[in-house]
Amino acid sequence: MQKSLSVYDSDGSTFAPLVVIELVSETKEEAIAWLLNRVRDKQQDGGAELLVEQLTPGAQGTEKDNPNVYVVGASWQRLLYGAEDVGLFKEFNDGSMRGFTYANKHNFKEFQGDGDGFLSMAECQYIIKHELDNLRAKDEAHVPGYPKMKLYPGKSVIRRMQSKGILVQVFPLHEKEELKRLSFSWFKKIKLSFQPLDDIRHYFGEGMALYFGFLEYFTLALIPMALIGIPYYLFDWEDYDKFTVFAGFNLVWCTVILELWKRLSASLAYGWGTLSRKKAFEEPRPGFHGVLGVNPVTGRAEPLYSNAKRQLRIYLVSVPFVLLCLYLSLYVMMIYFDMEGWALMIHDEEPTFWTGLLLFIPSIIYAVVIEIMNLIYRYAAEFLTGWENHRLESTFQNHLVLKVLVFNFFNCFASLFYIAFVMQDMVLLRQSLATLLITSQILNQIMEAFLPYWLQRRRNKKAHKRMIKTMEDKELPLSEQVKLEADMSTYLGTFDDYLELFLLFGYVSLFSCVYPLAAVLVVLNNVTEVYSDAFKMCKVFKRPFSEPAANIGVWQLAFEAMSVIAVVTNCALIGMSPQVKSYFPESETQLIMWVVGFEHFLLASKFILTFVIPDVPKHIQIKLSRLEFESLEALKKRVTGYMRCTADVTLSETPIRFII
Amino acid sequence: MQKSLSVYDSDGSTFAPLVVIELVSETKEEAIAWLLNRVRDKQQDGGAELLVEQLTPGAQGTEKDNPNVYVVGASWQRLLYGAEDVGLFKEFNDGSMRGFTYANKHNFKEFQGDGDGFLSMAECQYIIKHELDNLRAKDEAHVPGYPKMKLYPGKSVIRRMQSKGILVQVFPLHEKEELKRLSFSWFKKIKLSFQPLDDIRHYFGEGMALYFGFLEYFTLALIPMALIGIPYYLFDWEDYDKFTVFAGFNLVWCTVILELWKRLSASLAYGWGTLSRKKAFEEPRPGFHGVLGVNPVTGRAEPLYSNAKRQLRIYLVSVPFVLLCLYLSLYVMMIYFDMEGWALMIHDEEPTFWTGLLLFIPSIIYAVVIEIMNLIYRYAAEFLTGWENHRLESTFQNHLVLKVLVFNFFNCFASLFYIAFVMQDMVLLRQSLATLLITSQILNQIMEAFLPYWLQRRRNKKAHKRMIKTMEDKELPLSEQVKLEADMSTYLGTFDDYLELFLLFGYVSLFSCVYPLAAVLVVLNNVTEVYSDAFKMCKVFKRPFSEPAANIGVWQLAFEAMSVIAVVTNCALIGMSPQVKSYFPESETQLIMWVVGFEHFLLASKFILTFVIPDVPKHIQIKLSRLEFESLEALKKRVTGYMRCTADVTLSETPIRFII
Repeated sequence: MQKSLSVYDSDGSTFAPLVVIELVSETKEEAIAWLLNRVRDKQQDGGAELLVEQLTPGAQGTEKDNPNVYVVGASWQRLLYGAEDVGLFKEFNDGSMRGFTYANKHNFKEFQGDGDGFLSMAECQYIIKHELDNLRAKDEAHVPGYPKMKLYPGKSVIRRMQSKGILVQVFPLHEKEELKRLSFSWFKKIKLSFQPLDDIRHYFGEGMALYFGFLEYFTLALIPMALIGIPYYLFDWEDYDKFTVFAGFNLVWCTVILELWKRLSASLAYGWGTLSRKKAFEEPRPGFHGVLGVNPVTGRAEPLYSNAKRQLRIYLVSVPFVLLCLYLSLYVMMIYFDMEGWALMIHDEEPTFWTGLLLFIPSIIYAVVIEIMNLIYRYAAEFLTGWENHRLESTFQNHLVLKVLVFNFFNCFASLFYIAFVMQDMVLLRQSLATLLITSQILNQIMEAFLPYWLQRRRNKKAHKRMIKTMEDKELPLSEQVKLEADMSTYLGTFDDYLELFLLFGYVSLFSCVYPLAAVLVVLNNVTEVYSDAFKMCKVFKRPFSEPAANIGVWQLAFEAMSVIAVVTNCALIGMSPQVKSYFPESETQLIMWVVGFEHFLLASKFILTFVIPDVPKHIQIKLSRLEFESLEALKKRVTGYMRCTADVTLSETPIRFII
Repeated sequence: MQKSLSVYDSDGSTFAPLVVIELVSETKEEAIAWLLNRVRDKQQDGGAELLVEQLTPGAQGTEKDNPNVYVVGASWQRLLYGAEDVGLFKEFNDGSMRGFTYANKHNFKEFQGDGDGFLSMAECQYIIKHELDNLRAKDEAHVPGYPKMKLYPGKSVIRRMQSKGILVQVFPLHEKEELKRLSFSWFKKIKLSFQPLDDIRHYFGEGMALYFGFLEYFTLALIPMALIGIPYYLFDWEDYDKFTVFAGFNLVWCTVILELWKRLSASLAYGWGTLSRKKAFEEPRPGFHGVLGVNPVTGRAEPLYSNAKRQLRIYLVSVPFVLLCLYLSLYVMMIYFDMEGWALMIHDEEPTFWTGLLLFIPSIIYAVVIEIMNLIYRYAAEFLTGWENHRLESTFQNHLVLKVLVFNFFNCFASLFYIAFVMQDMVLLRQSLATLLITSQILNQIMEAFLPYWLQRRRNKKAHKRMIKTMEDKELPLSEQVKLEADMSTYLGTFDDYLELFLLFGYVSLFSCVYPLAAVLVVLNNVTEVYSDAFKMCKVFKRPFSEPAANIGVWQLAFEAMSVIAVVTNCALIGMSPQVKSYFPESETQLIMWVVGFEHFLLASKFILTFVIPDVPKHIQIKLSRLEFESLEALKKRVTGYMRCTADVTLSETPIRFII
């Protein structure tokens, strides 16, 4: 817990500020008073029972500063109850992970004395966010002072204010000491070591830690491929025979590493307590709108939106739009091939060093255009998916991921597929693959870390200087720190980071047999990626709320789909190699049959392997079964013997079950 | 409940007998007395708290009759508590399905007055079996009177006595009135109608009802294919063009019906309360043996068997054995082809009607040999899987199913694959397919229903006559009925029935495009199958214990795998058809590329379809979510407000959760 900063509560006691709420500066007084009261109200009165105070402007505060900035904290006991509410899993005395309950708190391993330090600051912030999100309207018809800002019983107050724009942002505060320590062990020391995943999880939450874990795992898994790839480059092994061996190795490798990652991620998630944690019931996402009705599941008043209408929007607008974009991408590809032919023509006419360089220009331009198109499409897809009006954030995300993946896959790899299977020009394929890969890596690094950093620096030069000072060593007053952090860019989640890894995985796996050096480039890229991602998380962005996650979700599926496509493309490339063709000098049909048979065999093995390798390691499976067994046994014990009568008489209305 | 039969309890009251326990006739008195006491003991003393009495031999009892036959029943209240123990789901007042709890009993829909009739007899018998299986040794070192029959705390008494052979059998009694009603609505009336699935479930349990549900669904789903197949036969449509259309239709159909079955089975299982029911913790199977150790999950004393040893047995013995069997099957296939060639030679030399008939003889002999090999292999596989010493019944079943499926698939279809893709003789393929299909259907019907019936009749001619009388109308004393039922054959589960359907599905789907009449034959077979299966369940076999099941388990996977293989074979057959070949007169390579591309497209669509169609229908998904939501809400309510303190003070050792 951050003890250095504290604000005075309304009754004069101090509390540690955890989360900041910023309202627009012209918010009406009555709305503010109402909101603060609701946040402070006792839980039995439907409040959040949190501590909240207005931020008093510091010495350097100017007229321009927004006065409506509030810091939120909570009593220690409130946080512990909140931990039970959100279903946090913690390590029990016997070493297993169990759902935390307040009543049972002393049986948890790290709970000492009054339990100070039991919850990490990220967990406390997550709890507060959860409680704020669950602050629901009672019988108010609208937000006081804003008759147009309709409310109905059960509507999340914070979400309504956010979607109507009075609430600018809610964000958790950074923890200076902790951040300094984390930065040091993460990216400031030069020596080669694993990333401090537990510390990252402690500070940023499980979702982020899993991303960095996956990034590291993916990089390490590529090292054997990179090591095999280097001699190909050094000794100029151009014959396809060796490439074929490489492709075979690659295929097995892809499948195995993805399966092993599932097990590793289950181990990590178990240790972090998110593996067996039950998902909370999902609320409608803030942007969702519709006619007020009754949710059939919760029985609560809630906007409803007809599924048929949504399907119409998806199939009549979104799908045609995506197809149009794919067509455009195809059109751009054709222009690229024209340019390529034109460059080749110039080079052939009068080959000099400069015309040799000119050969690379079309690929580079095309790579830049691809990146730009991806970027524009990304915004379009987000807008369109929002407009489809999905009820849940998870469905929204799935539709967005699907749209973006299909387009990015097509946009990045269509030209390579065309070169490989229509033109069948392996030299051009290698050159094109290398240029695309290198250019997109360079662009990505610029776009992702340096651009936001530079933009922020430009936008806020003075503040930035102060911030750097703050982050380094000097103590700044709370109000200054809050203002600095409020101005930092907002981190939009791991989506783009995973997408980048996904495309890199595609470059490595799809056409690996023609360009074994790809793995080396991706490993180098990933090493710098770790540092630039770590830097941007610690220095460039606002602290994000921690997101409990048990796995990398839909991305596991995306990577597996890519590895299936890789089997098909690599088999086809192997079949097209002169080396393999020479084994079947007479009959091309025979060759194709063999290749197709081999491909089917590989695909079948892949599916059997996925099925045979258990997703959760045995020792964790045993721990999970033990928990389940204990709860079943406890249930049985309750039913037998004397307790029955007691339960029957005193609690006949509300049957109970003992857990643990 | 069966009220007509009752026996006197030791305190003079009567109870309805539900389950029969038969011990060997020379069992020692002290062992019997001990067992009966343990069964009668109160639950807090570690007993099963059931009612049990020795069966007094009836008027016709002879010296030869085994005196150690006991009938078991239970008080009504005990059964209700048992229903909670086994986690039975019942319909709640609000129409949803909820886990039954004794405390909450009056809120369940069909619970009226004292709840008589709330549980079906099959459910009562299942509960009694569960309680008997869970009767565990306390501190006895061995079964009294049998120093070699070792026990240890926590060992299931019944299972030990069964595996050591003192316990001959435990089986539930038939219910004459109910059975008569069920038989009538099921197979005695001639008029065309759906099967009475709810009644079947009521009498035989969910596992059996799902089998009959699947059989009916599968038959109905084949009718469109059969209808399309008939004109092919009538009008002699020999051109492959039409077959290609048929194969395409077939592929889509297979995928769609399997997906829809999942939804239908989820609906059925929801209505029967097995969909969201939690699986009970699985005990080691009776035959499992090993060195006594401590189970890491339960912490109980239990035999342990090293996994490495089991793996050795599997890979060094079972796998080579299976491969050897496959080789043998291949060898037999080659002999068949020799015979086929020989018959053809004779026919070609001097073709008469008789030599024309001779052409079918090799196929018929081969079909019979296949059936015999399947049968022998089935026993070998069961022995081998038992010897592998799997701890759980479910793992045992999975390994058995895998072994049997691989061999049966190979044994039944290898010759067809050979004819289709190596010999490429479509006429022979059609003839061979037809002969195999028809012969195996006829053999199966004989083996499955008529053989056990006839054997039993021969073995027990006198008793049989009495039984028929009993079943028809005359009241027989309880002791007679028990003796009659004890002598009936034991139904070994749905394994063989599903296996038969699986092979039929293979005949229909794998080579459908060369023999569209297959669907017609399978539909006809299934219609008689329904009747013969129903007949054997009601008349030939002992009543089986009901088995709660939420789906058809591993068979769903097996059918889906078959439909994937069907895509591959049908695409290959389409590619080989002269009709399709004529589109690519010049380049065979082009043709193959197109077929392979088309096949990949189909496979991809199949997987996407499986992914897109939800496995549980929306309205049931809503009901399930509502239950989950309510339990989450109840949990939250407990945590908030005043109840916390109460919970904190009085129940700090045992945290509670409210369900409902």
